Amino acid sequence: MSATPVRTPVGIVGAGPAGLFLAHLLHRQGIESVVLETRSREEVEGTIRAGVLEQWTVDLMQDLGLGDRMRREGHFHRGITLRFNGESWHLDFEDLTGGKRVTVYPQHEVLRDLIAARLANGGEIRFGVQDVQLHGLTTDRPRITYRNGDGEPEELHCDFIAGCDGSQGTSRQHVEGRTEYQHLYPFGWLGILVEAPPSHHELIYARHGRGFALLSTRSPDIQRMYLQCGPTDNAADFPDDLIWSELHRRLETVDGWTLTEGRIFQKNVIGMRSFVCDRMQHGRLYIAGDAAHIVPPTGAKGLNLAVADAVYLARGLEDFYGRGRRDRLEQYTATCLRRIWKAERFSWYMTTMLHTNPAEDPFEQRIHLADLDYVVHSRAAATALAENYVGLPLD
Amino acid sequence: MSATPVRTPVGIVGAGPAGLFLAHLLHRQGIESVVLETRSREEVEGTIRAGVLEQWTVDLMQDLGLGDRMRREGHFHRGITLRFNGESWHLDFEDLTGGKRVTVYPQHEVLRDLIAARLANGGEIRFGVQDVQLHGLTTDRPRITYRNGDGEPEELHCDFIAGCDGSQGTSRQHVEGRTEYQHLYPFGWLGILVEAPPSHHELIYARHGRGFALLSTRSPDIQRMYLQCGPTDNAADFPDDLIWSELHRRLETVDGWTLTEGRIFQKNVIGMRSFVCDRMQHGRLYIAGDAAHIVPPTGAKGLNLAVADAVYLARGLEDFYGRGRRDRLEQYTATCLRRIWKAERFSWYMTTMLHTNPAEDPFEQRIHLADLDYVVHSRAAATALAENYVGLPLD
Repeated sequence: MSATPVRTPVGIVGAGPAGLFLAHLLHRQGIESVVLETRSREEVEGTIRAGVLEQWTVDLMQDLGLGDRMRREGHFHRGITLRFNGESWHLDFEDLTGGKRVTVYPQHEVLRDLIAARLANGGEIRFGVQDVQLHGLTTDRPRITYRNGDGEPEELHCDFIAGCDGSQGTSRQHVEGRTEYQHLYPFGWLGILVEAPPSHHELIYARHGRGFALLSTRSPDIQRMYLQCGPTDNAADFPDDLIWSELHRRLETVDGWTLTEGRIFQKNVIGMRSFVCDRMQHGRLYIAGDAAHIVPPTGAKGLNLAVADAVYLARGLEDFYGRGRRDRLEQYTATCLRRIWKAERFSWYMTTMLHTNPAEDPFEQRIHLADLDYVVHSRAAATALAENYVGLPLD
Repeated sequence: MSATPVRTPVGIVGAGPAGLFLAHLLHRQGIESVVLETRSREEVEGTIRAGVLEQWTVDLMQDLGLGDRMRREGHFHRGITLRFNGESWHLDFEDLTGGKRVTVYPQHEVLRDLIAARLANGGEIRFGVQDVQLHGLTTDRPRITYRNGDGEPEELHCDFIAGCDGSQGTSRQHVEGRTEYQHLYPFGWLGILVEAPPSHHELIYARHGRGFALLSTRSPDIQRMYLQCGPTDNAADFPDDLIWSELHRRLETVDGWTLTEGRIFQKNVIGMRSFVCDRMQHGRLYIAGDAAHIVPPTGAKGLNLAVADAVYLARGLEDFYGRGRRDRLEQYTATCLRRIWKAERFSWYMTTMLHTNPAEDPFEQRIHLADLDYVVHSRAAATALAENYVGLPLD
């Protein structure tokens, strides 16, 4: 009882950063696609997520003509502050990396811009679909079946399928012969959204004997702050006054800076894990973004890594359609994983350096303080941190 | 029944690198000392130990007039080779650090030179003493009692005592209020001495799925090689053919280099631990070298760190005798610990990056490979490794 199948060169499952960037990159090369998304447009655009964009991600948005609002509303940070042992140290990324900065522009704002532009240039994004299933992945004509927003069955016939359906998506399950690497951290983040002006013009990362804390921002009126907590803690168990007293303790040092309080209007607990799926392709299916890898939020690599996958996949598809060459597609997994493991390493390094881990002995805890002390005193070590934070160049 | 007490400004317990460098540094400033050592001179000079000297340690030996034989017989290495994932990468320290190198000159040769020069310039080193005991450490006239080589009781009256008696020594026990940090690694090194010409002109560090391996050298005719093994393994349980097959597997890559075998004439197992004693002074006692800290041998920091303590202690004593100032002595622990934690961090980093640890999950093992991959591809990361390996500048 299916409607007539629709044909499209590339079927993209998921309207997150990987899927939407891929659609735009392909469109620029004249390759059309259809994006399927189980959530509604409102849900996609309304899920407030952090966003620290690497320099090349910002440049790519500009190149794709998607940078106007980001340029107006984003915050350009030339560094971060590290606090530990009661001391406060600024790392100047612009100086350390020869001019690179990071742009704080929330992920949902990026998605709003990408969705609006994609629809404006005639692209198809089908929101609110259900029962997405992949078929014929090892043939030349893979298919996607699903139910549309009205519950009616539909079918998409493609040359290629991009599985960009996130960590909970099912497309990864189709990748035969994959090896999954996972690491769970014995802590989580309690995140709060606060009505307040910014307390600082850049992010502050603090390692404290009582645990990690992070001062971040969403907008001139809304601030985002995080406290290390237990991995299964319940956000409702943290009264506001406890949260403020912990944030003051962990973030404030002797330099006179103080944290500005405000009304806390949201609290949530974020688990911390690292995950890598080694093999990101099977036949005509290529997976990208959170479907293939997860990083803990320390270091802010998740969004950028999803975009990098999209770039590599788009290059492979461009070669296929434009020059009839398959080698880049065949090398997709290897190309992506080189960058992914670098970002996983950096996220793991930042996470282990900045959090107190009850499983570690006192020596290891002192080693992390020594690591921080080394980073702020060595230009080479500070440059290594900086070049990862602003983003390693794309291969 | 004690003989008449001997007076000396500084009593030094232990004729290892810390004690002997201290004696030379003090002598240069006209401050005399007596060194007490429980081992015989032959034992001290005959215990074959590795020696990778940092650039400033080499410079210091030259300054002290102790560098002639080192200059002739030492090997000057401009870098190291890292091997992993079947690849071989050279790190050129001389290029990365602006001209610094490391000098491979075994510790027992350093000690031979220091002992000979100290005795030649009239210094006193009493070998083969027993029952060394410290007294009156919180008075202005601390004393050391001991039995001389003939078993007769003797006594040394000092202004200051330097506890340079190694990790098994007792002087550390006198430091009240100290905090000890210890970390044991779940692996050890099987070390062999081989009659063979060098297989390579520099050190090769290898991380392999089967464990760490290190190719080092002692002389043009004697080579030193190490294999990761269990922490409580018995060296006698490793037949020669097993050792060679493991060394070939772990060290050889696709680049055509081969390991030269030879007669194995010594095998021993070395435990791996990190240790830091936080507080290195009590009254008129100052501890230095292995008495205060241990690093695993990866990264070759032990000898250099002992010499750094001696430099800081000598500076404090020079200020005391020359200008009547005590502030450097009071800051001795803090000054030393800044450098010690940096070296501990580096040794821990090299050790965890290069060894397979059965307690780590597959993700963490991949992270260490990613770390190596990052180091060989990033100039900043390679520089960070290099600047630690050749030695951070003395504060």
